[in-house]
Amino acid sequence: MTYGLGMLLDDGLVMACDSRSNAGIDQIAQVKKMTVFVRDSERVMVLLAAGNLATTQSVAELLEQALGTESDDDLYRAQTLFDATQVVGNTLRKVVAGDAQFVNAHGGDPNASFLFGGQIAGSEHRLFLVYPAGNFIEASERTAFLQIGETKYGKPILDRALKQQVGMEEAAKLALLSFDATMRSNLSVAPPIDMILYNAGSLDPSGVYAFDRGDSYFTGLSEAYSRGLAELLQHLPPFPR
Amino acid sequence: MTYGLGMLLDDGLVMACDSRSNAGIDQIAQVKKMTVFVRDSERVMVLLAAGNLATTQSVAELLEQALGTESDDDLYRAQTLFDATQVVGNTLRKVVAGDAQFVNAHGGDPNASFLFGGQIAGSEHRLFLVYPAGNFIEASERTAFLQIGETKYGKPILDRALKQQVGMEEAAKLALLSFDATMRSNLSVAPPIDMILYNAGSLDPSGVYAFDRGDSYFTGLSEAYSRGLAELLQHLPPFPR
Repeated sequence: MTYGLGMLLDDGLVMACDSRSNAGIDQIAQVKKMTVFVRDSERVMVLLAAGNLATTQSVAELLEQALGTESDDDLYRAQTLFDATQVVGNTLRKVVAGDAQFVNAHGGDPNASFLFGGQIAGSEHRLFLVYPAGNFIEASERTAFLQIGETKYGKPILDRALKQQVGMEEAAKLALLSFDATMRSNLSVAPPIDMILYNAGSLDPSGVYAFDRGDSYFTGLSEAYSRGLAELLQHLPPFPR
Repeated sequence: MTYGLGMLLDDGLVMACDSRSNAGIDQIAQVKKMTVFVRDSERVMVLLAAGNLATTQSVAELLEQALGTESDDDLYRAQTLFDATQVVGNTLRKVVAGDAQFVNAHGGDPNASFLFGGQIAGSEHRLFLVYPAGNFIEASERTAFLQIGETKYGKPILDRALKQQVGMEEAAKLALLSFDATMRSNLSVAPPIDMILYNAGSLDPSGVYAFDRGDSYFTGLSEAYSRGLAELLQHLPPFPR
């Protein structure tokens, strides 16, 4: 299982995913589920993957191979983020079409989903969720975040506290707390957490962070949140008994 | 869908469930999913149900009909809460065995699960979760709460803040916040929330509460929590950018 999270904020994008791949609790690996596509000062695109690892790695590799080829699958050629997301969806469809019968024959599930966000010079920053069917939806001011994979445990804190106006670093803290909630409940979501903070208009993809197990900031954040929550609960209105 | 929650605390039991029954978003009803079995000053038992409503209502009715009959299914005759939970599991098995082929033929799912907790004079208070198979597990000091139905959204706040030593009213507040988180994310979980606070040793089942939509305490609690959380987030350690 994976947890992937994308936030569409006034100030930019925060995108994060975990690094656990598992095919049963005794078959666990650390993998990279985030791929960043960049053309200097012109476009930045970030892909987060959930689902069948063979499928998601093939999709990322095929997208990388097509860069600069001027083919229909070339993310550098896409005029808009919408067009680029169609390329991601089409590539997913091709990979699944090629593998599905073989994977199914082994009782496996070839499906995958993606978060795909970024910016092309001259346009707004945008964020999409690509479904296993290859179609997709876009985040908007009414849906400031999109999730893939193990989405439920990490959703309540976002529902309550995330707004599009929240600053990038506040949002990044919320993202880490959302991952913390998920990892406490689902062992198949695990660090390191890969995260990118992309400032709208910058076309600069350098804000990449990794929070590994025992990372002092992540641990301190989680502990400070637990302490603060305990204190907050004590100051809520008394139960009407 | 249902959300049902039981907490095993040093001071007693807090048990709560919502009241939404739905068979599709255009077929919604308010139902009672909590049943309390009492023999004065001798035993108190609380049953919370999730799953197929026909199944759960049949189980509750059959258990009620058997009270005082001195049959094997008589909850008044059970020597221990463990024995009583076996009666619940067996009754569930009987109902499902009788209905399954007919429900399956209509594409339905006859399954159900239960939380069952209480106290018999001379013994400790106990809390069980009855699986659809009719077998069951018990809460202990390592699992201070058990859940049935739509469990994920409401779990993070309990994982972080609920301990067996928490007082009854603090725990009741946590339960309401856990329901609030669930109802924000899943429309098929809805008020009124039925709740019982059972004080260990009291054998008194009178601590029953219902929190309906717009209930002023519940609304105020949720708002105070949102405000406090926003403030807490601002005071967490700054992101290490």
